[in-house]
Order: sequence, then C-alpha cells, then structure tokens
Amino acid sequence: MTSHGQFITFEGTEGVGKSTQLENAADTLKSLGVDVVVTREPGGTPMAESIRELLLAPRDEPVNDMTELLLMFAARAQHLQTLILPELEAGRWVLCDRFTDATFAYQGGGRGVPVEHIAQLENLVQGAFRPDHIVLLDAPVETGMTRARHRGELDRFEREAVDFFERIRQAYLDRAATDPDRYHIVDAAQPLEVVSRDVTSLIRGLVTRP
Amino acid sequence: MTSHGQFITFEGTEGVGKSTQLENAADTLKSLGVDVVVTREPGGTPMAESIRELLLAPRDEPVNDMTELLLMFAARAQHLQTLILPELEAGRWVLCDRFTDATFAYQGGGRGVPVEHIAQLENLVQGAFRPDHIVLLDAPVETGMTRARHRGELDRFEREAVDFFERIRQAYLDRAATDPDRYHIVDAAQPLEVVSRDVTSLIRGLVTRP
Repeated sequence: MTSHGQFITFEGTEGVGKSTQLENAADTLKSLGVDVVVTREPGGTPMAESIRELLLAPRDEPVNDMTELLLMFAARAQHLQTLILPELEAGRWVLCDRFTDATFAYQGGGRGVPVEHIAQLENLVQGAFRPDHIVLLDAPVETGMTRARHRGELDRFEREAVDFFERIRQAYLDRAATDPDRYHIVDAAQPLEVVSRDVTSLIRGLVTRP
Repeated sequence: MTSHGQFITFEGTEGVGKSTQLENAADTLKSLGVDVVVTREPGGTPMAESIRELLLAPRDEPVNDMTELLLMFAARAQHLQTLILPELEAGRWVLCDRFTDATFAYQGGGRGVPVEHIAQLENLVQGAFRPDHIVLLDAPVETGMTRARHRGELDRFEREAVDFFERIRQAYLDRAATDPDRYHIVDAAQPLEVVSRDVTSLIRGLVTRP
C-alpha cells in the first residue's frame, strides 16, 4: 500500500505573508518527520517558470484575458504532471504558493473572466484533482499592498488598482465559505508571531488528524 | 455597411511550401486590389511570438501534451483578439500560416490528444469563429521532410519521427473530407510552378466569387 502525500496550497492577496508562512509550515512538517516539497504557481518547473516570466513581464501589448487564463493553466498542467503528482505519489507532502483558487480569485474575481470558463479548464487540466487543504491568509487589501510596495518594484499584477485586489479578496472569501472543511482562513492582519502560531497549529492538526 | 475581409489559412506538414504559397496568394490578392495582411501561428503578435519561442525551443524537460495544447490556444487567443479580428473588421483579408486545423492535426492526429479536448478549447477561444477558407498543401511526408532538412537545423517538432508526420497528414485529409466547401486541397508534390498556378487560380476564384 502506498501512502500518498497531502497537497496544501497557500492563498491570499499581495503582501499577506504567504512566503513566510509557507516556510513556517514546511519547518513544522519537517519537525514532525514529514517529507515536504515547497513549490509555487505559476512555475515550479523550468518550463512552467518560463511561462511565469511571460505572464509577469510588464509589456506594451495588452494581454488578452483568455490568453492570461490559458497561460496560467498551461503552466499548471506542466507543474502538476512533472512535479506535484509524482511527489504526492512518492508519499511527500507538497506545499504550493498559489494554485487554482488564485485563478478563480485573480482572473475570475479580479478580471471578470466567467467562472464557468475557469471551471472548464480546471476540469480539463486537473480532472478531479483538487488541493487537500487550502490555507487562506486573509488581510485588508491596504495592509498587504503596503507590505508588497516595501519589497521593491511592482510587477504587472501589483500595479493594478486597489479595487482589483478588493475583488480578489472577496472571491477568495466566497470560495472559502463554500467548503469550510478544506479552506482554512487565517487572519493575516494579526502580528506576525500570532499568524505564525495559527499556521503552525493548523499544520500540526493536519498531520495528527486520524 | 462594413465589408469584412476573408480569413484564409494555409495548412500542411513540414516542407510542403506554405511560405512560398502564402506569398504567392498575397501577391495574387494585391494584384486584384485586395488589402492583405500576412501572419502566422503560433505567433502574429509580440506576445504570441514569445509563446511560439517557448513552444519551439528544444528543452530537456519533456513538455506535457496538455501544456503544449494550452500554449497553442493562449497564443491563438492573443493573435485573434489583437490582430486577426481587428484586421478583418477593417475590411482586410488575413492570410495565416497555420491555424486551429494545425492543432487538430499536430496535437490531435500527431500526439493523440483527444479531439474533444481540442474542440472544447476551440469553442472557448474562438466562439463560432472559423476560417473562411483553408488551403491544404498536401504532399507525401518524405517529400516535405527532405525539403525541411535542407533549410537547416530542425526544431523540436521537425525532429519527430516520420510516422508522427504521417498521422498529421492523415488528420488534415480527414478534416478536409468533412467540409469540401471550405477546404481546398492542393497537390504540393507537383512541380513548384504547377502548385503556384493552382494556388493563384484558387485565390482568384475566391475573390471573384459572387
């Protein structure tokens, strides 16, 4: 009998602390003897990272919404088949910085791409595969934007107006409300050590679950 | 009343003479006073050309079939919305080196991607939009391969085995058989001047059609 790993994704708007909490979650899992792989979307393999570069590069030519959506899923198909599924089958846990929920939130909620188009591509690329758990780091948009700006130059997504990110935050919260067993909302507006304590405790709970 | 241009695509396996006949068709149209734009897939805009580079670059990481398919349609969505549709609406004729028939032939016939997946993406990206006419330059695979090799280094697609191209040729012929009004098969194994004469006469026929 093979024991499959768990697939846990970290979601949220800009600057909510996903990278820090991913690292924290990975450390927590390692301390409990769990084999962990940390990866990100779009990206995670050299080919998918090249697609990420195409997506994030500021450019003069306006990028069509459907083009952006298809590039996201092209990178996801590559990441899923090349890295995520083989690692899970080998029994490792995979922690991923963003996944399909980000597409529903950014392209759906943010850009207004019809949700049924995203769902169609989700089924085409993933079949029935979904994350086992989604950690949603939630904070008011202004809090995150201020942190993101302090990191340096803004990429094409970060340059969008604040109301774009408000729609994204709401789309995340709406999705979380539909499936509270898989979505875990963490209040990321709290002081860092409190957020970290919440995430550590959440991750410990997933490992010790019967 | 706006008069829309016609969208004519040129299809066929490697080395059948698509570029030469596209140029010939453009010259024929210009001589008849028709405004023409010549473009190609994957590509046709700077963003779509960047996707083309990703697709054609030889790489160590095997590219997942679904990734390849989604990249093709990502480039197509960009090309369609940014160049093809605006040019047709402005009354110009658009001649395109490969379009969705190439995806059915290469990814479907060649790689064995289920045809219904391609059709689903075709509807998602194009809605009801289809080429007005498809010029299929048909020749035995060996004839074309020999010509392609003489042009220099082979790209990732050209390195595939001959039976891959046999399946592609057959997929093109099968599609052409389903819709003889829109598909025009030209025997590209004939001497160049005969192929050119056939294409010129075909294109003239399309302009003078009532």
